[in-house]
Amino acid sequence: MEEHRLSLRMSTLVFTLSIIIIVLSYPAQPLALNHSPKFLGKFAATARTHSNSEPPPQFHYEKRYFQQRLDHFSFSELPTFPQRYLISTEHWVGPHRLGPIFFYCGNEGDIEWFAQNTGFVWEIAPRFGAMVVFPEHRYYGESVPYGSAEEAYKNATTLSYLTAEQALADFSVLITYLKHNYSAKDCPVVLFGGSYGGMLAAWMRLKYPHIAVGALASSAPILQFEDIVPPETFYDLVSNAFKRESFTCFNYIKQSWNEIASTGQTNNGLELLTKTFNLCQKLKRTKDLYDWAEAAYSYLAMVNYPYPAEFMMTLPEHPIREVCRRIDGGPAGTSILERIYEGVNVYYNYTGEAKCFELDDDPHGMSGWEWQACTEMVMPMSSSQESSMFPPYEYNYTSIQAECLKKFGVKPRPRWITTEFGGHVRE
Amino acid sequence: MEEHRLSLRMSTLVFTLSIIIIVLSYPAQPLALNHSPKFLGKFAATARTHSNSEPPPQFHYEKRYFQQRLDHFSFSELPTFPQRYLISTEHWVGPHRLGPIFFYCGNEGDIEWFAQNTGFVWEIAPRFGAMVVFPEHRYYGESVPYGSAEEAYKNATTLSYLTAEQALADFSVLITYLKHNYSAKDCPVVLFGGSYGGMLAAWMRLKYPHIAVGALASSAPILQFEDIVPPETFYDLVSNAFKRESFTCFNYIKQSWNEIASTGQTNNGLELLTKTFNLCQKLKRTKDLYDWAEAAYSYLAMVNYPYPAEFMMTLPEHPIREVCRRIDGGPAGTSILERIYEGVNVYYNYTGEAKCFELDDDPHGMSGWEWQACTEMVMPMSSSQESSMFPPYEYNYTSIQAECLKKFGVKPRPRWITTEFGGHVRE
Repeated sequence: MEEHRLSLRMSTLVFTLSIIIIVLSYPAQPLALNHSPKFLGKFAATARTHSNSEPPPQFHYEKRYFQQRLDHFSFSELPTFPQRYLISTEHWVGPHRLGPIFFYCGNEGDIEWFAQNTGFVWEIAPRFGAMVVFPEHRYYGESVPYGSAEEAYKNATTLSYLTAEQALADFSVLITYLKHNYSAKDCPVVLFGGSYGGMLAAWMRLKYPHIAVGALASSAPILQFEDIVPPETFYDLVSNAFKRESFTCFNYIKQSWNEIASTGQTNNGLELLTKTFNLCQKLKRTKDLYDWAEAAYSYLAMVNYPYPAEFMMTLPEHPIREVCRRIDGGPAGTSILERIYEGVNVYYNYTGEAKCFELDDDPHGMSGWEWQACTEMVMPMSSSQESSMFPPYEYNYTSIQAECLKKFGVKPRPRWITTEFGGHVRE
Repeated sequence: MEEHRLSLRMSTLVFTLSIIIIVLSYPAQPLALNHSPKFLGKFAATARTHSNSEPPPQFHYEKRYFQQRLDHFSFSELPTFPQRYLISTEHWVGPHRLGPIFFYCGNEGDIEWFAQNTGFVWEIAPRFGAMVVFPEHRYYGESVPYGSAEEAYKNATTLSYLTAEQALADFSVLITYLKHNYSAKDCPVVLFGGSYGGMLAAWMRLKYPHIAVGALASSAPILQFEDIVPPETFYDLVSNAFKRESFTCFNYIKQSWNEIASTGQTNNGLELLTKTFNLCQKLKRTKDLYDWAEAAYSYLAMVNYPYPAEFMMTLPEHPIREVCRRIDGGPAGTSILERIYEGVNVYYNYTGEAKCFELDDDPHGMSGWEWQACTEMVMPMSSSQESSMFPPYEYNYTSIQAECLKKFGVKPRPRWITTEFGGHVRE
């Protein structure tokens, strides 16, 4: 079995646009997995670019800041930090008519990115006469403590307060403040969220029932902990999304990993791969190509919307269908690697604007989600030799712990989430 | 109005013995109030004496220790601390018969003191085939971080993790461990607690519904925050417990404060008071006598059991009845101060063993509950000129904040408890 760390690190990204459709169409494609959290950074950066300009015309909101305690659960003397939140009262019918507050639980990225890709909340707000609030998650976007992302991400001590419980407390304090500020004490709060943000919405409804009357948690893998679901679940679901479109497509992808590995081991193999995959820089090791392709497949499953969308990348409707159409459609004699390249191209370059591809070559840069995955969000994931199209990988907590200790100097707490939030169902 | 800080600081103490009777007999006498937390220290010391000897024969338990994180909600590098817990499996019918786990939420004192005064849990355990667990609250008894109480109580930084949320997380982690250790995953956990421990039981059922199926929260003033109940509630209830026994008794007490104050202002007045109240040391200021008497009345209301008990002090059945019998029963010509002295004697010296009384003269010693009252447990309490028998006092948050800043260098968070745990009922 190839010692390829398939799921050592993960980054989550949401698919919240038109969540209802997703929930109905796809049984639980829970979490973006991605072993190199660089992707999040990449997308967050994209979102930051957006945020410098005016919000798109369909989303009218103000940007505001609320000073939050860095640690809600102790009385240590720590600096506060500004939590950014987007707010719209345009359609709110006000406290006298008990206009609801729609509160999106911001997740691991720039909040404007989520706000501009969560059309559902904006679409239904006028029908409910609702206020809309999109608070940013601490340590992401502009809501960073210690004055800058550089300082906040400096080490385990400064990162120490990047936890889900602290984020929920931020939300609760902010809602309490807003209710006071708008004389909206009796207005019901409904939580929204997708992926990690959906986990937060579900957990917040559980932990703060006096604050929110309901939560719509979309694609929220709150059971992806310890032994609650089989560790193969995520990769099997992603694989099935491809298999459902085309069994040959699934098989080409499944065979491609050995093709990549054996090509990489030949003379000039890395050059050949560099050329086949149109990489900007010479490939240093096949693992980087694995990561790049795996990320594409995983994200594709997560944003496999039945309409064109631009949440992660500009993509057509049913993007996996398009990927498999290209993988399967090469003329006779097309190699597996050439087929795969055409497929991955759908994800990374549907617009055709990219001249070549940059594989992120800084896998050791710190990112927020990587910290969270190394502390609380310990989600066991394996890739099955039989049922998955990904390289086989067996989840190994020991090696994850060693890696987290090495990278952050922090020891994960793999049992904490279920202790704090539950998840095990009594038999 | 006398500027006497009636409720600036409070200490809580429980009355859990035979809680059912208490709950039925007395409508909500919520919390020990006591402006000088010294009393807790005194009782905790008493309890520690007990704990050096074998537990009384009716309580069979083992003492064990469990290493807890000092901060459950961050990943700061902090030392762990040993949480002491008492455990009895004597009557437990085991996991196969789903024997329940009775879990007493330890409050602000030595856990053996609570265990030995919570007969109810021990009495019903055999009937339910239950395991009994009494965990100690962090920072109390032997469960102190940083190696010693001296270190733990050194300053705001070391005290920083003495919070209710951390205590609840301790309990949850301990239960999870015990369930694992006893293969008792499916055994239902029922929480118990009185006073502050009752608050913890109620809050834990709310916050950790996956951990406990029920909670019996006795005399738990979870609504004694912000503006939820009128601030006069507590002192009015204490006063009514005296008024109910005897209106003249109530009036003697109500008049006594001015007697004390005016006597104290005369030449040799402090000597006279020292003699009248049989104090071991010369009284320095009347405030100390106020504190001493107020504490007696407040605690008497809290342990006003219909049977003899020794929870706080050795007391007869219906102790307030006895107090008023003595206050009212002095022969004609007995002064108010002499009457009061006889009454307070019931509380402080029912056994007659005390030769003279020591007023705690170290009101600035740090105590755990005082820290909690200066951080999270900000309970507004006033004493009404009309309805209370205590010296009138109007709750003033500003002065409390100033005092907490001065004493601990910490700023209270008066709105945090309701944000975290709720309490306001929607109209």
